[in-house]
Amino acid sequence: MKNFEFYNPVRILFGKDQLKKLAIYIPQGQKILMLYGGGSVKKNGIYEQVMNALKDYKVIEFGGIEPNPHYETAMKAVEIVKAEKLDFILAVGGGSVIDAAKFIAAAALYTDGDPWNILAKGAVVKASLPIGTVLTLPATGSEMNMGSVVTRKSTNEKFSFLTPSSFPKFSILMPEAAASLPQKQVANGIVDAYVHVIEQYLTFPVNTPLQDRFAESILKTLIEEGPKVYANPADYDAMANLMWSATMALNGTIACGAATDWSVHMIGHELTAFYGIDHARTLAVVLPGIWKALKNEKKEKLIQYAERVWNISGTDDEKIDKAILQTTAFFNSLGIPTSLKDYDLGNDAINRIVMRFSERGWKAIGDRQLVTLDVVRKALEYQL
Amino acid sequence: MKNFEFYNPVRILFGKDQLKKLAIYIPQGQKILMLYGGGSVKKNGIYEQVMNALKDYKVIEFGGIEPNPHYETAMKAVEIVKAEKLDFILAVGGGSVIDAAKFIAAAALYTDGDPWNILAKGAVVKASLPIGTVLTLPATGSEMNMGSVVTRKSTNEKFSFLTPSSFPKFSILMPEAAASLPQKQVANGIVDAYVHVIEQYLTFPVNTPLQDRFAESILKTLIEEGPKVYANPADYDAMANLMWSATMALNGTIACGAATDWSVHMIGHELTAFYGIDHARTLAVVLPGIWKALKNEKKEKLIQYAERVWNISGTDDEKIDKAILQTTAFFNSLGIPTSLKDYDLGNDAINRIVMRFSERGWKAIGDRQLVTLDVVRKALEYQL
Repeated sequence: MKNFEFYNPVRILFGKDQLKKLAIYIPQGQKILMLYGGGSVKKNGIYEQVMNALKDYKVIEFGGIEPNPHYETAMKAVEIVKAEKLDFILAVGGGSVIDAAKFIAAAALYTDGDPWNILAKGAVVKASLPIGTVLTLPATGSEMNMGSVVTRKSTNEKFSFLTPSSFPKFSILMPEAAASLPQKQVANGIVDAYVHVIEQYLTFPVNTPLQDRFAESILKTLIEEGPKVYANPADYDAMANLMWSATMALNGTIACGAATDWSVHMIGHELTAFYGIDHARTLAVVLPGIWKALKNEKKEKLIQYAERVWNISGTDDEKIDKAILQTTAFFNSLGIPTSLKDYDLGNDAINRIVMRFSERGWKAIGDRQLVTLDVVRKALEYQL
Repeated sequence: MKNFEFYNPVRILFGKDQLKKLAIYIPQGQKILMLYGGGSVKKNGIYEQVMNALKDYKVIEFGGIEPNPHYETAMKAVEIVKAEKLDFILAVGGGSVIDAAKFIAAAALYTDGDPWNILAKGAVVKASLPIGTVLTLPATGSEMNMGSVVTRKSTNEKFSFLTPSSFPKFSILMPEAAASLPQKQVANGIVDAYVHVIEQYLTFPVNTPLQDRFAESILKTLIEEGPKVYANPADYDAMANLMWSATMALNGTIACGAATDWSVHMIGHELTAFYGIDHARTLAVVLPGIWKALKNEKKEKLIQYAERVWNISGTDDEKIDKAILQTTAFFNSLGIPTSLKDYDLGNDAINRIVMRFSERGWKAIGDRQLVTLDVVRKALEYQL
């Protein structure tokens, strides 16, 4: 096990009837920016419940946060926060709304120049406004971590930033609010959580038996509960299990002392930035390609994954090949394609991504810096 | 899954060379009570390392905290804290030292009368002095939770209290400090962590597949790594895995949304209070008896435990019986007895415990209040 530091002060309020605790955890007198997305919270009744719970506060609402939230939109919210001297950001929705809230909260207090540098140049965030979240969509885990991913529409760039002041003060997780989600969003959430686990697990052995088993526990639960939720998002118990699995997938627990990767995300981000493909769907394309390209380098963990998560037997090669096939079939069973062709993309797209990595001066990414530009190309070519 | 609230703000610093971060996490100028136990920290070099890391602070040391820490001893430390106006309690050692620190930190600021009421009457703790811990012995999980168990020697009473102000600000987990532990303490730690998991897992099904798998992950890791550490406490990797498993066993994660029990602990506490038997050893006696007495009521989870943790097949009854046998054999393999006879105890002890429960007016404890006084008696009689 590697040395590690773990700290996660997010208060989780999970389940039914938790919204009424909002007033306990937002100090009286705070002026709140209530952030939401495309308006589904108005259709499913959550908007009204939240506004009702906040009736004793001054609330300014800001809707229209996009999936893969835009820097440009977030900066409009920053202006409002500053002009109105708001004290608290409440994100109501899924990971995109929460990620936008984290950036808005940081940018509102950023005084060292252009806030874009927080994303593009890793500029240090010294403070953020306090954030709370009401989660209505299981997927990114942003409700219980300090990470955020934001896209600059004008330049097709997608970057992330991490800072302790981004930890939400609390997150209210509402499986019942997810009951009316479109199947496509449910599927995206399952795959997103799945690949989050893979990025922290499927690397190389560093003697972390507990963390490995935790990771396998989340994967097996996603494989078991995911199809139930996909078939019926109103299945409360299955949705609750999916939602908690997605949170645990990226709250730092399984990464403690483990080797991590994140190359699938870094490549996937470019597919979103250039072509607007949903985040989870980019991961489903890139992951099998990376595994095919790094079969040998990731051999031990691929075999362990095959045996423990999918109960596959056979030779080592058979285990690896079948594990890749099973994973692909799992994604496909949720209506998520795994080929670039499904998005009408070909060698031009691959060239564009490799070129951008090269322009940034990146030589290699991922665990043990295995993913060179050649590996990026090879991985994507497997998925043509 | 049940509704739940989860909050755990303890910062974990795990592994080698973490002690030097002490000065980052204890504010400059604080006056520190450094608490330790029987002096093993002076033999293994940890005392010197800690004092060296704290050379710029005023430190008053207080040694001699007992296993199953005594209220009377803790109150002496409280007097020193008050007289010297100390600001911070640093616990260096295992769970007993940490539990004592939590009580001292609360009692030092308690102004509503006799601090014994915190333990005996559940009196509300409004504040505690800040606590940090340096963990040298994997076992109780106290380093990452808000619970504490303290024994009043003069009356043979052992009680616990829980309060958010008891969460340590940080805990430095040092597997290398545990390298010189006596085998008996290593064995106690393994069994303690094991039964902590069981109390939060082996109840009845409430549709918590992820939490169940996490619990099984910890049990399997204890079964796998425990014997390695028992054979050689200086095996750093195995000790690290044991230490992290013991922390994860009782930091709230596996209890999220799950049904819990704790009757084995409540009965075991009386065996410690009356007869001074090590905490973990009392659990090893009580647990098999409770399972034998509640075979039918805990059937579903006993079968799941048999199948998933021990890979046992057969009829339901065979699975349950073999699981109880395997668990007993596991404890015995670590030199931990599972019979009252091994402690020269018989029916008198059983009567004494049942009588005390009865005097307290307790009618039933444990999950679904299944453990009536009759069940307590029956469970202990199985272990005669």
